[in-house]
Amino acid sequence: MKENRRGFASDNNAGVHPAILEAMGAVNDGHVIAYGDDPYTSKAEESIRQHLGEDTGVFFVFIGTAANVLGLSSLTRSYNAVICPETAHINVDECGAPEKFSGCKLLASDTPDGKLTVEMIASHMHGIGFEHHVQPRVVSITQSTELGTVYSIDEIRQIADYAHNNGMYLHMDGARISNAAVALDRNFYEMTGEAGVDVLSFGGTKNGMMYGEAVVFFNQTLCEDFKYRRKQGMQLSSKMRYIAAQFDAFLQNDLWKTNALHANRMAQRLYLAVKDIPGVVVTQPVESNAVFAQIPPEIIPGLQEQYFFYVWDDDRSEVRWMCSFDTTEQDIDEFALLLRSMLSSE
Amino acid sequence: MKENRRGFASDNNAGVHPAILEAMGAVNDGHVIAYGDDPYTSKAEESIRQHLGEDTGVFFVFIGTAANVLGLSSLTRSYNAVICPETAHINVDECGAPEKFSGCKLLASDTPDGKLTVEMIASHMHGIGFEHHVQPRVVSITQSTELGTVYSIDEIRQIADYAHNNGMYLHMDGARISNAAVALDRNFYEMTGEAGVDVLSFGGTKNGMMYGEAVVFFNQTLCEDFKYRRKQGMQLSSKMRYIAAQFDAFLQNDLWKTNALHANRMAQRLYLAVKDIPGVVVTQPVESNAVFAQIPPEIIPGLQEQYFFYVWDDDRSEVRWMCSFDTTEQDIDEFALLLRSMLSSE
Amino acid sequence: MKENRRGFASDNNAGVHPAILEAMGAVNDGHVIAYGDDPYTSKAEESIRQHLGEDTGVFFVFIGTAANVLGLSSLTRSYNAVICPETAHINVDECGAPEKFSGCKLLASDTPDGKLTVEMIASHMHGIGFEHHVQPRVVSITQSTELGTVYSIDEIRQIADYAHNNGMYLHMDGARISNAAVALDRNFYEMTGEAGVDVLSFGGTKNGMMYGEAVVFFNQTLCEDFKYRRKQGMQLSSKMRYIAAQFDAFLQNDLWKTNALHANRMAQRLYLAVKDIPGVVVTQPVESNAVFAQIPPEIIPGLQEQYFFYVWDDDRSEVRWMCSFDTTEQDIDEFALLLRSMLSSE
Amino acid sequence: MKENRRGFASDNNAGVHPAILEAMGAVNDGHVIAYGDDPYTSKAEESIRQHLGEDTGVFFVFIGTAANVLGLSSLTRSYNAVICPETAHINVDECGAPEKFSGCKLLASDTPDGKLTVEMIASHMHGIGFEHHVQPRVVSITQSTELGTVYSIDEIRQIADYAHNNGMYLHMDGARISNAAVALDRNFYEMTGEAGVDVLSFGGTKNGMMYGEAVVFFNQTLCEDFKYRRKQGMQLSSKMRYIAAQFDAFLQNDLWKTNALHANRMAQRLYLAVKDIPGVVVTQPVESNAVFAQIPPEIIPGLQEQYFFYVWDDDRSEVRWMCSFDTTEQDIDEFALLLRSMLSSE
Repeated sequence: MKENRRGFASDNNAGVHPAILEAMGAVNDGHVIAYGDDPYTSKAEESIRQHLGEDTGVFFVFIGTAANVLGLSSLTRSYNAVICPETAHINVDECGAPEKFSGCKLLASDTPDGKLTVEMIASHMHGIGFEHHVQPRVVSITQSTELGTVYSIDEIRQIADYAHNNGMYLHMDGARISNAAVALDRNFYEMTGEAGVDVLSFGGTKNGMMYGEAVVFFNQTLCEDFKYRRKQGMQLSSKMRYIAAQFDAFLQNDLWKTNALHANRMAQRLYLAVKDIPGVVVTQPVESNAVFAQIPPEIIPGLQEQYFFYVWDDDRSEVRWMCSFDTTEQDIDEFALLLRSMLSSE
Repeated sequence: MKENRRGFASDNNAGVHPAILEAMGAVNDGHVIAYGDDPYTSKAEESIRQHLGEDTGVFFVFIGTAANVLGLSSLTRSYNAVICPETAHINVDECGAPEKFSGCKLLASDTPDGKLTVEMIASHMHGIGFEHHVQPRVVSITQSTELGTVYSIDEIRQIADYAHNNGMYLHMDGARISNAAVALDRNFYEMTGEAGVDVLSFGGTKNGMMYGEAVVFFNQTLCEDFKYRRKQGMQLSSKMRYIAAQFDAFLQNDLWKTNALHANRMAQRLYLAVKDIPGVVVTQPVESNAVFAQIPPEIIPGLQEQYFFYVWDDDRSEVRWMCSFDTTEQDIDEFALLLRSMLSSE
Repeated sequence: MKENRRGFASDNNAGVHPAILEAMGAVNDGHVIAYGDDPYTSKAEESIRQHLGEDTGVFFVFIGTAANVLGLSSLTRSYNAVICPETAHINVDECGAPEKFSGCKLLASDTPDGKLTVEMIASHMHGIGFEHHVQPRVVSITQSTELGTVYSIDEIRQIADYAHNNGMYLHMDGARISNAAVALDRNFYEMTGEAGVDVLSFGGTKNGMMYGEAVVFFNQTLCEDFKYRRKQGMQLSSKMRYIAAQFDAFLQNDLWKTNALHANRMAQRLYLAVKDIPGVVVTQPVESNAVFAQIPPEIIPGLQEQYFFYVWDDDRSEVRWMCSFDTTEQDIDEFALLLRSMLSSE
Repeated sequence: MKENRRGFASDNNAGVHPAILEAMGAVNDGHVIAYGDDPYTSKAEESIRQHLGEDTGVFFVFIGTAANVLGLSSLTRSYNAVICPETAHINVDECGAPEKFSGCKLLASDTPDGKLTVEMIASHMHGIGFEHHVQPRVVSITQSTELGTVYSIDEIRQIADYAHNNGMYLHMDGARISNAAVALDRNFYEMTGEAGVDVLSFGGTKNGMMYGEAVVFFNQTLCEDFKYRRKQGMQLSSKMRYIAAQFDAFLQNDLWKTNALHANRMAQRLYLAVKDIPGVVVTQPVESNAVFAQIPPEIIPGLQEQYFFYVWDDDRSEVRWMCSFDTTEQDIDEFALLLRSMLSSE
């Protein structure tokens, strides 16, 4: 493979947007108090509040897994359960960190498209008040989902209402929240706090940042002790200004939006370019920056040699192609061409 | 306080060395596989092995607390205990993360100077084999210590020998290992693997890096499953290349040494400048980049307005002044002048 | 309900067999060393070894949940997973204790009859060696199952072989192992150690004991540190002789067998008495001491007033009737009569 | 040693008081609902409420370690700390169960006599609100202490007031609370809820019971979710009636008092018999049922052959002699005689 060639493995295989890098350099001067008690961090928190509500609690951590795990931990006791889709990052891609750290069990539902429904949640609501069973306390959804689909605001609100009516909270894993926001053409707040989300993992690394994620609480009584959880959770950065600078730049001048719009457009372009190729079956609606497709297994290794990507489901020969802020039209076109040629020569 | 004025609060109040920042920018091009399976990470691991031994296991995490906690977790089961000084970072500055994550109890010894001795360790060695008691399994020391003192290589070896003879491992918190290495004028390996250290938290953030720490195993059988612990411990960075680039730059051209030598020299200069000021009592030998001193409590707030630093022990009116890679001679001289003038006008 | 009337709620609603009570009184004289270092405990361990193998490690704990959780903990690290049926006690009836205590995730399979198959286990074997996924380390089966079915020895052996060939251990929850043994007409060892079980929760409380369960290790290298786990797991009884006396009596004179044979026979009698009643659909093969059946929901409350039992699945109106060592033929006959009369008068 | 000879090792080396055994047999008839939803359990809870207050929450568990650990867990989050004496059972005799289960750090104070003072507690009250430090949330004391001393009611109240004024709770480990009550000639409530204790581990096993301990909450808002903690903590007995029967008998006809008065009187008799023997130095005030003494190390093995007891502190050659409800005057007199003769023949 050509050195550092752009592929479709993941939006986190991309580098950092130049404006983000520049912002990190711009805060490098002199001394500021460590661990977040500095003006850059205050400013970045304020930037986030402008997008997500003035009354939110905002806490920076290093990564999305930590944002999810610490956010969930702050809402639960160890005898609680978290309801989520089978495909949720917390369920399959965090090596059991939610269970290890919170003690909670995850109750997962099979879904066709990565999206939880009220009916799925309701199927887990038994044994309430019965001490032999874990007690559901949080519903967790991912926006956009791990399958590239996007909840409508109504769908989020229905889940939130159900959760709240049943004494539960709604957590959102927003690792790709920018892609969802541009897909729905709504702002962050409309999709989260206004729709009933209680705690949000607000991510930017998959959209041009280097590292850092924000845990955002829409109800500040839920995060009164979160600073201790963050420190004990090994997520308190000493030189916090560099996370702050990233978020600040990410939210300025609509960089988040520009990047996400681009990535989503590239996924649409990829979808249009491959959907009619014989031998390719697109398996999920392309609503954000991912394309899922079944392709013949025998062509996968050769294709991966040119453009790295992951096989999502070996049994079904289903692959995932992610677009990122730096994917180019040429990348798409050349990839589609290659795919088409490999399939026609079969 | 002047904006971003350099003070003596902590070496992590400083920014990032320009060479480090530059190295981070230099790896920004194109796509590489996430989570460390990239050439930059391999190269940085190799750089660390050149300093610490070819047979070491090297794992990057985000911060020192995590390096300590995950390193200790990999050596213990929950019924074990970790023996450390009362002043150890793991004991007082990690909000109970070691206990929470490993389940282990810490057995702490009072020390005059932050340095553990074999006698102190031996005092915890009772109840061995008795199931009612936690079973000591690791000794943890910090080099240089939280009080700025430095273990000699002989002292480390004695502790290592005692630990090994009693079925225990030796862990070293090397958050400021560069400062210790230049203080002893020895290389990293002589102070660690060669002296009997089993697991090292190898840090650079306090010496000019932005974030990132390496857990280094001198016996690779101890880290066979560490990759799972790191992921479950919420410490696996997706865009790992930016941690790798930092470490690579840190170890190239002796940047680590230049920075640490400077910081230590500044601490000596500070020591010499204040030791004879009436009202100042230096309380610890100045062996690395810290000066501990008792000063009259009434001058502390005024002094902190000009140069921020922490009170270490309120009861004794003892303060800590840390020097960093970017402390200047002028900083020292002006600070000492101010201190002298405040004390003479009392 | 008549005072202390025998019902079909659970075999642990029964009292204690008189021979067990008597044995507890017989060890009451004088002082013995606490925490199991006494001759009664040695004798009971020896009794268990006579049934399960001379080379087994035997540890008494208070209850089956603890036997399961501590047994599983001793086989796993927190990043591991335990594969089990959806209906497993560890999955649905221990309030998340396995996750809380071991940190592990449970990977559960839907089953028609509570019995795991190699195919089901295999469906969880992906992501092996991939640090983002939990790593399966133990398969856990229950004999007899929570649905009253019984694994054949061949079925156990196949699961054991698959587990061992894939680097996993086989754990058996033997809360009702006596009922399975008499169902198969095999001894305990043939169903466990000989068939490839690595760790067994050996229970007696559901078969006439008062409290106490044994964790039995067929490979003693697996339990070298179990005494610490038991103590830290809050399962070390000070006056251990009273658990020991129970197990000794349970295994003497085939008391376990007499009790289990009786309970199983009562379940058969119940099955025969109800299977042809119109409105009753027996839903599981009656292989041990449980009868599962669908009955019309409207008769359940009235029936429960006379004989307490649990609704197993509200949606399907499926109930569970357990027989115990003290169930009488008259109990069965009167209950069946009542059931028939309630259904005929509908 | 003569078979089952009474010694001075521990009050839990004794058997079970006949009235307790008899009460256990008396509840053996027929079926009752498992897990505590039975009339015997209700009655026993009521008995406890009569002694400790009508508004208390009462939960039976198996052992004192579990009562302590689950009680503390219900008062804390993992970033909290528990302040206790160095000699506390939770600190040295529970194999790290408090840390493992609650995640909390224990902050222990050296004491001359096993009793915490407000000054000792205050010495741990730093770093409050500072996220790098664990946050003290509970003070835990033992009544009577592990050294046989007894807090006065005023001492308890002072500690309770200090705890409450500093946002903390007071937990009492009452493994030997009966011995303390008779020592002070006060009832249980005066020493606990009335004096400001928030949660009590109420024990009887060291005073004639077989197993079982009650966690008693004086403020019921603290135990709203305790039933889940108990189940997940592997402490919910299925055949609960046998724990209930023990507590009921223990509290009836002042059995607890009769037993404790006797044990304390035996300790006084032992104290008087040995205090003037040359070579014996009694090291703690004999306020309950324990005598601590320094004796020449060379006589210890021979003495232990006749009467088993534990060496408390090897370095000081200090031993512990515990009296129990079944210790006889003859035991004391013969033991003292033997001790005197061994010392005179030195």
